[in-house]
Amino acid sequence: MGHSMVSLIERKRDGGTLRPDEIEWIIGEFTADAVPDYQMAAMLMAIFQRSFDADELAAWTKAMLHSGETLALDAVTAPKVDKHSTGGVGDKVSIPLAPMVAACGVAVPMMSGRGLGHTGGTLDKLESIPGFRTALDPPEFASILEKTGLVLAGQSESLVPADRRIYALRDATATVPSLPLIASSIMSKKLAEDLDGLVLDVKVGSGAFMRAEEDARRLAETMVAIGSSNGTATVAVLTSMEQPLGRAVGNACEIAESVAVLRGEGPADLVEITMRLGVEMLLLGGVAGDVDDASSRLQATIDTGSALDKLVEVVEAQGGDPAVIHDTALLAQPRRFHEITAGRSGVVSRCDALAVGRAAVALGAGRQRKEDSVDHAVSIELLAKVGDEVAHGDALARIGYNDTERFEAALPLLTAALGVGVDADPGPLIIGEVR
Amino acid sequence: MGHSMVSLIERKRDGGTLRPDEIEWIIGEFTADAVPDYQMAAMLMAIFQRSFDADELAAWTKAMLHSGETLALDAVTAPKVDKHSTGGVGDKVSIPLAPMVAACGVAVPMMSGRGLGHTGGTLDKLESIPGFRTALDPPEFASILEKTGLVLAGQSESLVPADRRIYALRDATATVPSLPLIASSIMSKKLAEDLDGLVLDVKVGSGAFMRAEEDARRLAETMVAIGSSNGTATVAVLTSMEQPLGRAVGNACEIAESVAVLRGEGPADLVEITMRLGVEMLLLGGVAGDVDDASSRLQATIDTGSALDKLVEVVEAQGGDPAVIHDTALLAQPRRFHEITAGRSGVVSRCDALAVGRAAVALGAGRQRKEDSVDHAVSIELLAKVGDEVAHGDALARIGYNDTERFEAALPLLTAALGVGVDADPGPLIIGEVR
Repeated sequence: MGHSMVSLIERKRDGGTLRPDEIEWIIGEFTADAVPDYQMAAMLMAIFQRSFDADELAAWTKAMLHSGETLALDAVTAPKVDKHSTGGVGDKVSIPLAPMVAACGVAVPMMSGRGLGHTGGTLDKLESIPGFRTALDPPEFASILEKTGLVLAGQSESLVPADRRIYALRDATATVPSLPLIASSIMSKKLAEDLDGLVLDVKVGSGAFMRAEEDARRLAETMVAIGSSNGTATVAVLTSMEQPLGRAVGNACEIAESVAVLRGEGPADLVEITMRLGVEMLLLGGVAGDVDDASSRLQATIDTGSALDKLVEVVEAQGGDPAVIHDTALLAQPRRFHEITAGRSGVVSRCDALAVGRAAVALGAGRQRKEDSVDHAVSIELLAKVGDEVAHGDALARIGYNDTERFEAALPLLTAALGVGVDADPGPLIIGEVR
Repeated sequence: MGHSMVSLIERKRDGGTLRPDEIEWIIGEFTADAVPDYQMAAMLMAIFQRSFDADELAAWTKAMLHSGETLALDAVTAPKVDKHSTGGVGDKVSIPLAPMVAACGVAVPMMSGRGLGHTGGTLDKLESIPGFRTALDPPEFASILEKTGLVLAGQSESLVPADRRIYALRDATATVPSLPLIASSIMSKKLAEDLDGLVLDVKVGSGAFMRAEEDARRLAETMVAIGSSNGTATVAVLTSMEQPLGRAVGNACEIAESVAVLRGEGPADLVEITMRLGVEMLLLGGVAGDVDDASSRLQATIDTGSALDKLVEVVEAQGGDPAVIHDTALLAQPRRFHEITAGRSGVVSRCDALAVGRAAVALGAGRQRKEDSVDHAVSIELLAKVGDEVAHGDALARIGYNDTERFEAALPLLTAALGVGVDADPGPLIIGEVR
């Protein structure tokens, strides 16, 4: 090929620019084991320090995207639109959103991840539905999408293999929090899904990857630019992750709350974000004329029960037991409960998403390390959220647990996450958008 | 141990400081294969970008130094002083210097390297002496030093193993030209030699690692500081490497020129630097009262032939044939010669060290890659140096070669290295010092 990895590392090290053919060579050789991990590690640290310009980023993403198979969903005639969230606490939006959008005639080929650290993962939540299979190969993925209009799966091993290897290396080399590497990792996986449109939910705040609005906006702009340069219409919505979304944090309990949304009984914040992202998906899919039209169509999927039917349909298609959707009390439940109560009367002033997320991990709902297993039954229920008035002794949160040791680890974390004061401003839930 | 490599990389990545115990842990775990190459590669790139402060540098060097055996030369009662050069073209100083200094009563435990790229290596030059062994284990190294007062060997495998592994990784990850990594690599190897004093010859100019005086001075200051913090008296002399040192560039021909110095027939520039470094070594060794005293003693080793005797003695001790020292015409000679002549009358204005060094490599005198072999016989003889007057048709340089193809590759490089103009200023040979 004529490229030398050492001289390419050297150029990036000194702040120079890599050409598209050079980037394609790097990713190709790394995927083929011809560039060793230690050279890639040095390159990743150089990229961390020197970043990428827009052309480098587009080329890096494209090379990742073509490092393995890509989906070919030509048999699906409906417009295909997916949603991706940068991750938060209590963020079960995908689960009610996908069936609502699918019920409106937009195909939703959704590939999700597992929880790691304080953020939960859609796959873990879905797996609290008994029998539900999230590991689907591309033909089965395509066939379920074609049949039901949506599919809720894990990332296929055959798609974007370079990302899995680069991500593992970033994790071990302190090069995860790099804007171009984050953006290209997310976008390469999404663009491999053969989408007509993509909606990004970029979380901002304590429980999000990006704590500052400015950083989140830069990430959103970067990802939207990659989508555009790839010819995939992409819209990003910036939403608040200062406190968890909805009231349920865990796995089975988040399925129950998602079903509640589809029954018209969801908590206001979760419903608001679900509707907003759904509107963007319908508009990108071209099945609604404007925002009002899109909102009405989404509301109708709740009012008529068509979205709930769609969820039941996909659960059955993926081997899950639909009984737990019809009656969420059949989902795994914790054996013991404990309530945290308000030590004074006032207004809930703090419900810190990061701390709640860490409490959930301590409880067993999430993973500290990739190899940890998850307890689907345990739950944190937020009975009051920021801005709610409470009286002395009122329950602020309820912990549902199975293991006393884990409960004792989680309790102080959750207690510290909650605060009652004289006044509170939860701030706006929808912070902005990038299109 | 309680340290996490990821969090240490993260700290250095963001410009933070590593504590001595953390640095000791990193080098220890890396040497023990408990920290993988890819994590070390990311750390090296982070160090390249963020550098080290003086305490980190001292700790890093100390940890490297203790990554393997160190020499124990207690049996040698004489003061032990070594010299290290940062490398240049035609730099055979060690070969006349070590016997001169040893003949004055200072023990010289010299460990040298091989040539790589355009710079030559003392080991390659020494190996043009038939039978001369440079691979000595520590007991033999100590025993020859004790017996003859000097020893000229390669780096022992058992000393500073961390440096060999880190150097190989730096070479593959574009992290070689980092001031703290260069300084700690050099100094860890020298400090493992159990020295009472160390003289550094820091080359500046076209053929040197550091082209700018400012960079060379910073490297010199950094290394002197490491020596001091280790309790080893260290002096650095900055010397010019704009043109090659002496007239001979190659291997056998540089042995011949070294012997010429010991016979009182050496070229002026080579003699000047040898004397200056020798003075520093005698002063550090405490065997001379002042500069004049040291100079007289060194001159006496030439006048009486005691330095030449010392060289013969060490050649015999290391298995070499002393006949080639008594008569350098017995050294390997090239079969064919070609002279480059002046195209005009005037003054030699250019004799570029880097270009001459590259011509020597093309000829086979040096290595492009570590695994290349060296032709000891081939030579470049610089018949005129910068500032010399020449007439049209006078020989500027003579190439001695064995292989026509290699000669044809070297000829244009050497021709381009030489220039004749109306005036020239070679600049000072000794640029400065750091102590």
